[in-house]
Amino acid sequence: MELNWFIVDETIKRSLNEDLGRGDITTDSIVPVGTQAFGHFIAKEAGVVAGITVAARTFQLLSPDIQMRLRYKDGEKVVAGELIAEIEGPARPILWGERVALNFLQRMSGIATLTAEMVSKVQKYGVEIIDTRKTTPGLRLLEKYAVRQGGGVNHRMGLDDAVLIKDNHIAVAGGIIPAIKVVRANASHMVKIEVEVENEKEVLEALEAGADVIMLDNMDPEEMAKMVKLIDKKAVVEASGNVNLNTVEAIAKTGVDVISVGALTHSVTSLDISLDLFHR
Amino acid sequence: MELNWFIVDETIKRSLNEDLGRGDITTDSIVPVGTQAFGHFIAKEAGVVAGITVAARTFQLLSPDIQMRLRYKDGEKVVAGELIAEIEGPARPILWGERVALNFLQRMSGIATLTAEMVSKVQKYGVEIIDTRKTTPGLRLLEKYAVRQGGGVNHRMGLDDAVLIKDNHIAVAGGIIPAIKVVRANASHMVKIEVEVENEKEVLEALEAGADVIMLDNMDPEEMAKMVKLIDKKAVVEASGNVNLNTVEAIAKTGVDVISVGALTHSVTSLDISLDLFHR
Amino acid sequence: MELNWFIVDETIKRSLNEDLGRGDITTDSIVPVGTQAFGHFIAKEAGVVAGITVAARTFQLLSPDIQMRLRYKDGEKVVAGELIAEIEGPARPILWGERVALNFLQRMSGIATLTAEMVSKVQKYGVEIIDTRKTTPGLRLLEKYAVRQGGGVNHRMGLDDAVLIKDNHIAVAGGIIPAIKVVRANASHMVKIEVEVENEKEVLEALEAGADVIMLDNMDPEEMAKMVKLIDKKAVVEASGNVNLNTVEAIAKTGVDVISVGALTHSVTSLDISLDLFHR
Amino acid sequence: MELNWFIVDETIKRSLNEDLGRGDITTDSIVPVGTQAFGHFIAKEAGVVAGITVAARTFQLLSPDIQMRLRYKDGEKVVAGELIAEIEGPARPILWGERVALNFLQRMSGIATLTAEMVSKVQKYGVEIIDTRKTTPGLRLLEKYAVRQGGGVNHRMGLDDAVLIKDNHIAVAGGIIPAIKVVRANASHMVKIEVEVENEKEVLEALEAGADVIMLDNMDPEEMAKMVKLIDKKAVVEASGNVNLNTVEAIAKTGVDVISVGALTHSVTSLDISLDLFHR
Amino acid sequence: MELNWFIVDETIKRSLNEDLGRGDITTDSIVPVGTQAFGHFIAKEAGVVAGITVAARTFQLLSPDIQMRLRYKDGEKVVAGELIAEIEGPARPILWGERVALNFLQRMSGIATLTAEMVSKVQKYGVEIIDTRKTTPGLRLLEKYAVRQGGGVNHRMGLDDAVLIKDNHIAVAGGIIPAIKVVRANASHMVKIEVEVENEKEVLEALEAGADVIMLDNMDPEEMAKMVKLIDKKAVVEASGNVNLNTVEAIAKTGVDVISVGALTHSVTSLDISLDLFHR
Amino acid sequence: MELNWFIVDETIKRSLNEDLGRGDITTDSIVPVGTQAFGHFIAKEAGVVAGITVAARTFQLLSPDIQMRLRYKDGEKVVAGELIAEIEGPARPILWGERVALNFLQRMSGIATLTAEMVSKVQKYGVEIIDTRKTTPGLRLLEKYAVRQGGGVNHRMGLDDAVLIKDNHIAVAGGIIPAIKVVRANASHMVKIEVEVENEKEVLEALEAGADVIMLDNMDPEEMAKMVKLIDKKAVVEASGNVNLNTVEAIAKTGVDVISVGALTHSVTSLDISLDLFHR
Repeated sequence: MELNWFIVDETIKRSLNEDLGRGDITTDSIVPVGTQAFGHFIAKEAGVVAGITVAARTFQLLSPDIQMRLRYKDGEKVVAGELIAEIEGPARPILWGERVALNFLQRMSGIATLTAEMVSKVQKYGVEIIDTRKTTPGLRLLEKYAVRQGGGVNHRMGLDDAVLIKDNHIAVAGGIIPAIKVVRANASHMVKIEVEVENEKEVLEALEAGADVIMLDNMDPEEMAKMVKLIDKKAVVEASGNVNLNTVEAIAKTGVDVISVGALTHSVTSLDISLDLFHR
Repeated sequence: MELNWFIVDETIKRSLNEDLGRGDITTDSIVPVGTQAFGHFIAKEAGVVAGITVAARTFQLLSPDIQMRLRYKDGEKVVAGELIAEIEGPARPILWGERVALNFLQRMSGIATLTAEMVSKVQKYGVEIIDTRKTTPGLRLLEKYAVRQGGGVNHRMGLDDAVLIKDNHIAVAGGIIPAIKVVRANASHMVKIEVEVENEKEVLEALEAGADVIMLDNMDPEEMAKMVKLIDKKAVVEASGNVNLNTVEAIAKTGVDVISVGALTHSVTSLDISLDLFHR
Repeated sequence: MELNWFIVDETIKRSLNEDLGRGDITTDSIVPVGTQAFGHFIAKEAGVVAGITVAARTFQLLSPDIQMRLRYKDGEKVVAGELIAEIEGPARPILWGERVALNFLQRMSGIATLTAEMVSKVQKYGVEIIDTRKTTPGLRLLEKYAVRQGGGVNHRMGLDDAVLIKDNHIAVAGGIIPAIKVVRANASHMVKIEVEVENEKEVLEALEAGADVIMLDNMDPEEMAKMVKLIDKKAVVEASGNVNLNTVEAIAKTGVDVISVGALTHSVTSLDISLDLFHR
Repeated sequence: MELNWFIVDETIKRSLNEDLGRGDITTDSIVPVGTQAFGHFIAKEAGVVAGITVAARTFQLLSPDIQMRLRYKDGEKVVAGELIAEIEGPARPILWGERVALNFLQRMSGIATLTAEMVSKVQKYGVEIIDTRKTTPGLRLLEKYAVRQGGGVNHRMGLDDAVLIKDNHIAVAGGIIPAIKVVRANASHMVKIEVEVENEKEVLEALEAGADVIMLDNMDPEEMAKMVKLIDKKAVVEASGNVNLNTVEAIAKTGVDVISVGALTHSVTSLDISLDLFHR
Repeated sequence: MELNWFIVDETIKRSLNEDLGRGDITTDSIVPVGTQAFGHFIAKEAGVVAGITVAARTFQLLSPDIQMRLRYKDGEKVVAGELIAEIEGPARPILWGERVALNFLQRMSGIATLTAEMVSKVQKYGVEIIDTRKTTPGLRLLEKYAVRQGGGVNHRMGLDDAVLIKDNHIAVAGGIIPAIKVVRANASHMVKIEVEVENEKEVLEALEAGADVIMLDNMDPEEMAKMVKLIDKKAVVEASGNVNLNTVEAIAKTGVDVISVGALTHSVTSLDISLDLFHR
Repeated sequence: MELNWFIVDETIKRSLNEDLGRGDITTDSIVPVGTQAFGHFIAKEAGVVAGITVAARTFQLLSPDIQMRLRYKDGEKVVAGELIAEIEGPARPILWGERVALNFLQRMSGIATLTAEMVSKVQKYGVEIIDTRKTTPGLRLLEKYAVRQGGGVNHRMGLDDAVLIKDNHIAVAGGIIPAIKVVRANASHMVKIEVEVENEKEVLEALEAGADVIMLDNMDPEEMAKMVKLIDKKAVVEASGNVNLNTVEAIAKTGVDVISVGALTHSVTSLDISLDLFHR
């Protein structure tokens, strides 16, 4: 799915204003109007590129005279030292936008890179890596896009596009079965219903109530495998809870359909990418 | 410095809209209007709290009837298992805001916690830990606030409130001395000038030109110590470049005044904090 | 589902500014500051109330001193001549907001009233009346809310919360089966897939590809009944196309699950409601 | 008068975001980037076109590569089956914008069509059809523009550009004469004053006080004719109250100058227009 | 007419953000949270107060705990040394808002003061002082309000609420008579038409075409008096062009109805008002 | 420093909407679509141009087809009668934007002109003229830019980019020395500290505490000269308080480094500039 650029443009402008404030007092004192600059976006470590389009748009919003030539597209792998993109244009707006463009690109590439590592460990089992709503406030669209660039799949985008019944909801409703029943009565026929379960009894209730998706929360692989058998394709099975690069393969082997990983977006390590400028 | 709440309120509302979208189809189907809820924010691991005021404001914007009692204030240390705050009020808006409030609180506490670890390693040397402009787009105010809660100090807030002359600027100006000279001629008398240097020759030029702050970029501790002696209190000395928990103390010992750490904000690990709800 | 009041508040403020502009030159010339007014919202014809909460919020945004006592809630039926709500407070802001409040209330009640008429004709068959995306630009949230108050159910809220494959998509994909296949490969496991079909052949393809919902587009009741049998509960069946109060019952009898009605929102007749003011 | 496009652009973007949300999951899954589409806007019934420029702008905001060739301009009549405009460009953004563009075009054309029908019945009497402030919240500019395209004339645009003294104002002021007097004393010399009257006594007072415009509210044609004579060109005469296609001509014959019709905008029937896409 | 506070609140918030930026680094370093402050707004010179309500709102938006007691209301005269208002509340937000509140109050009072001086020279002739569209960009509502507080009357608020035909329009239309004719054909019956004239011939044309208001542009008093006689109450007469305190009375004596003064808002001298703070 | 055009564009659009409202009823009635216009911006008095780029941008935002040829750039001097710029393009948008463009240009040029007069009186003494925060709410960026075009230098842009300790702060802190000390402990190493002093004792304290800048508030020239000697280059010296064209040179002779002048922006006299249109 493409980015909604009306939203992304607002996000970029807001970020540029946050950094630029009343103006760049260093650059505008030193760099004469009309100075041209050239530059290279270089990967300082291996990873998956995501957000190079967002970086390019950042510069375009500052000056339509800035040109970028992309050598890699979002979703492609780079190794350390490779040239991701070239930039050319008036030096002032390139310097104004450098930090913001890199802040987007490094974070988004960090997310795509971790996602790709997770995916590489589970795809042989036909299992999908999915994200959560544990995203950085204000950047969900971009972070979920980065997950897709890393080969992951998005869980729901917000509270409004799918039902996920959690323990708090179950407690109020008086059980899984009445919870699903009341949702089914209220929700559109276009909405899927997922329920979070913690043990076999709850799995059986979820099946009885006809949940579309069952989330096994914080179970060990052995228990998960048992539940997968119990569910027997009558619902999609999602594994959840403290998944990391060490545990994800064992979870995938249990036969679940999808594994959701909060750390994809709640604890991002930026991919190291630099912008090196030249003055020919 | 206090947060500018006009800006923070907009950030929170934008984040709530991002998650809530057209409405919470799960909660509103299951939880009757009028249901009350009670809850505990619990630290699942040790760290420094930051953003509990932002979390509280998130709920207040959703409903003025939600009350929070803070047991810890921003900047205070918690150990695993401790109660950070209690919440009480109508169940629906508490469930609507839960994820967004935690997304703020966990990230900001993660930043404060890492900052505090860095600070604990260097404060005996009278050295300050400072941040950079490598912040998450849209969240700079909150992330720099979190750094302060962890005992760190802020570097400039943007391109407009202080001068930092980097290699790209020096190349255009034709050297450190002309670069500082042109800035001095253009900038307000209220602005400080920092220059990035890479070797002894550049340090000497920076001193000659009267830089207020000299940033030693990517030097090893031995070289740094030599430069500190050379500068001899005629300028503030900042160390920069790939600082981490293993290297920071050695850098502090060189006698620099401040150490800037990009990783404080460019690679955040969320502090694990949960919101457990009850229905009395 | 409750309204997202962050969005609704912006909609109301925008509408007030649209009408109030630089200020009410009539009222402020004639009505002294401090004048109190009292008023009755009266139904001039029978119908279902929707938007009385939006009207109340309109006045509250103009002045917190305006009080409204609701005699009817959204979703309740009134007959001609009945008192829907009382209003009391400073006369100036009541006069400023009168037209905007009524513009919301009359339109939303018009939608709820037509929906309720449709529902009354089909509910004995266990069929639901649903809306479409043919809503007034900028008012979708409020119009879909009004449909719910009339006893209807919402179809998807936008292009992002469910899949609806239409003839244009099928043409590009090269058929229903490849269209559903490619969507299934790309979309989240939380998304339902509906496909629009025009004849028996397409119904069979939709079933083979495993569509969650099949929309029978512009078929006559006889053909619909045949398709319902063919589908045989393997998918939800939606009837669509030029549904009106004369035809809806015949369609309901065919056994379809839901009937979507564009006219609910694309051709609204306002319910006649007046605000009569008094000065005690 | 031309549309203020700063306002209209914001209205369009808001409406696109309302529909597009986080992105079009159907189109982007099925239609490859680079696919071209061609399409025809076809009138499915006779009427007056209004808003084709707004529809064109909707697509332009989504992609500058979309081209539209208008065969009819706003304000022109079409018969059923005619081609209003052609569209050509990248298929994705055409599909993203289709529904929003039609929602604008169909409503605005519906308003223009009804206005033109009204106008056709009264223009032989030299009477003008005018609108009211009973417009859809947020769309007043566009709806009043549509009235003009149908041959109608706009009444005031809001509470700030002309004075209209209604019964509530008269009650507070203690009569028509003091009401007009106080307005005259306060208002700019550039503002016209209209007063709503219900009987002969009030007409006489309005004349005595020098009202610029007198609105005859809910009178029958016979009474109107009498008042027109009484007023005798000393003020503009406006007829108001439950005007429809059956009653409008009899009202026009009474000699009033303008007839205001709330239904032009408070109860819109969309003109049926479709967008048929092709893939050459 | 009251201020539209939706618009004014946005203006105040924008101005506070402009000054406060990322936060007040002086105040928040020095003044402990919880410190209370008391203060006096003192007129340092004689004048007419305008904007004390805007100043009060500025502080209220920063903190609901700040209280102001107004000793003078907008539109009242003060002499040098008088106490205009008292303020009490938390010291931090009082210091944050001080400059912005004074910036509003001083400018608006400056405008009201000059207006009142003008009015005092002409009111014995029954002539009104009116403003123009030469206002500070973004502050028109507040500046036109200040003119009213000084006893002046507003000319049109913008290009949309009255017609003013200037020489450029006349040139395009091919004369005053065709210009007025085409406007009359297009404009609402609620709109007044003013035309700018430069000599007797144009006055006669304006009268023939039935202009509501005739603006005598840059005539000397003698010529004005002649034109006033010629017009003979058949239209409102406005004098315009380089009016100042020395010339305004002579113009008023010519018998014109209103005199428009661009300098009221295009060249504002702030009234000197200080805020003196105490710490009891 | 260049203007941040993201901010300036919003300011211009807001100002255009303020004037244009729902549309220009005069121009659009009289001037046919397609009419071309040509015009000259003429200086009616001598001064320094500032804001011609803002005027040009105003027209560009209304229509990309409007072309301006600048004969003078911001910061250049003109004499009365000179042609500042030519404009050519569609007549309608030129007439829509005329007043707003001139409102910006005249005010900004007025500020630049006064600044230049001040500068011309003091530059032989090596003294700089600086502005204050007494700017028009919402226009600080543009007004501080105008000061620079007149040869002045900006003091801090807001409360967030430099420290200025005033009497209120000193009172709370318990003296100048503790005030500076607490700021030094809290503020970034990139921030300069200025303190306002009123007598010799306070100057000595400021020096002892190591203030970067000392502001001599409301002293007479004799006393200032004494303080300058006392300070002896250990801090930058700023003179402040009721500076005007008559007093500024005497102040400059005292040896202060910079002189701040509130009147540059708090009491602006617009430079008289006209736009004369032609229709070839």
